[in-house]
Formats: sequence, C-alpha cells, structure tokens
Amino acid sequence: MYSEKVMDHFTNPRNVGEIENASGIGTVGNAKCGDIMRIYLDIDENGIIKDCKFKTFGCGAAVATSSMATELVKGKTIEEALKVTNKAVMEALDGLPPVKVHCSLLAEEAIHAALWDYAEKN
Amino acid sequence: MYSEKVMDHFTNPRNVGEIENASGIGTVGNAKCGDIMRIYLDIDENGIIKDCKFKTFGCGAAVATSSMATELVKGKTIEEALKVTNKAVMEALDGLPPVKVHCSLLAEEAIHAALWDYAEKN
Ligand code: FES
Repeated sequence: MYSEKVMDHFTNPRNVGEIENASGIGTVGNAKCGDIMRIYLDIDENGIIKDCKFKTFGCGAAVATSSMATELVKGKTIEEALKVTNKAVMEALDGLPPVKVHCSLLAEEAIHAALWDYAEKN
Repeated sequence: MYSEKVMDHFTNPRNVGEIENASGIGTVGNAKCGDIMRIYLDIDENGIIKDCKFKTFGCGAAVATSSMATELVKGKTIEEALKVTNKAVMEALDGLPPVKVHCSLLAEEAIHAALWDYAEKN
C-alpha cells in the first residue's frame, strides 16, 4: 500500500522539531481529518531557507510528506520553495494512495503559511 | 485541543512494536481515513494477556488511543479485555475531540480482531 520511501520517511522522519526564533511559522489544520501541522523556517539575509522543521499530530502519510517536503525546501530560495507543491512531494515519495492525498496537502499549506508569515514580518 | 494524557501517549507511546509468535494478531483498517492498525497479543495458558504491542500508520489520536488501550488490556483476562471499549480508552485519556473519535475505534477493533484470531487458533 505504501512505497519504500514513504515507509522510510514515516519510520525515520527528517527535521522533526521546532526552531527557536524562527523567521516564519505556519500552522494549518486539515478539515477532512482534523489533524494539525506546524512548520518552522529559518531564512537567512539572502532569502535562502537554511533550516526547516515540522511538528504534526497527523498520520503516517502526513509525517512522510512533511519529512520529504522539509528536505526539499532546505537550501532553496523563497521563490523556489513556493514551487515545492504536494504533487512534487508525492512524486519524490513514489506516490501515495488516493485516500491519503489530503494528508500531503498539510505540508504544502504549512510551508506556504510559514513563507507568508516571514513575508509579513519583513 | 488535546488533553495532557493524549499528548503524553502520543509523544511517548507505550508498547509500540511486534510480538514474535504472537498468540493472536488483529489487523484493521479505517474506512474514514484509510489508516491501518495491527495489534499483537501474547496470551498465557490461563488466558491472561501477558503482553500486547501495536503498530499503526494512523494519526496522533490513533497512536495515543492504542498506547492507552494496550496498557489497559495487559494483565487482563480475555473476558475483561473485551470490555476495554474505545469509550473506556477515551475516558482514560481525558477525552478526544469529536473529529478524532473514529481514530480511537481502530484500537478497539484491532484488539477484538486479535482476540478472535487467538480464539480461532485454540
Ligand atoms: S489522516 Fe489526518 S493527516 Fe492523514
């Protein structure tokens, strides 16, 4: 049912945690399942995402997509990070079952919310 | 949104894992969110549940309820374990938000499935 990459990022999630004094924080909720996700971004003076961490109460698919999404946005500019869609994340994970696609939206939305938070502060 | 006990069992889940040569194994799926759960029981010759472990791809509420449910059935007889309903588990956790109640059903159903599996084998 789940690809090897999904199981890898679920059992060994990357970038779980918080960033103190983060440049931007995004918190989103999933209307379909009631789960929540928070993303922390550390963005340097050149607009490069130096670090990215996440916390979630969501399911294995939410954990795996957030783990992969944080890996994908690290080292990127804000413009590049905005192009890391949930479609790109799902492809990087070799796919997700249709019933779990809504879980993968949490990471994309939380990253966008954190980038908005950063933009509003600067 | 979540009680302290839910957050405790979510961040430090008890009894995660598998039991080799388990007396009974129950696997159930959640139609609402597509998540899966597996419970392993080790039952001795007097019908006492000596050990109980679980694995799930489910969300934080599924993890917390399974963690609490496995704690509650350990040391119990089969008859007593059948009375560990998801309502009892939710009460032991000081409640869950209504949107997450369906997640708590996974643990109850998986324990019942594992007890059936044991009964069929004996
Ligand atoms: S079911 Fe809620 S995030 Fe997957």
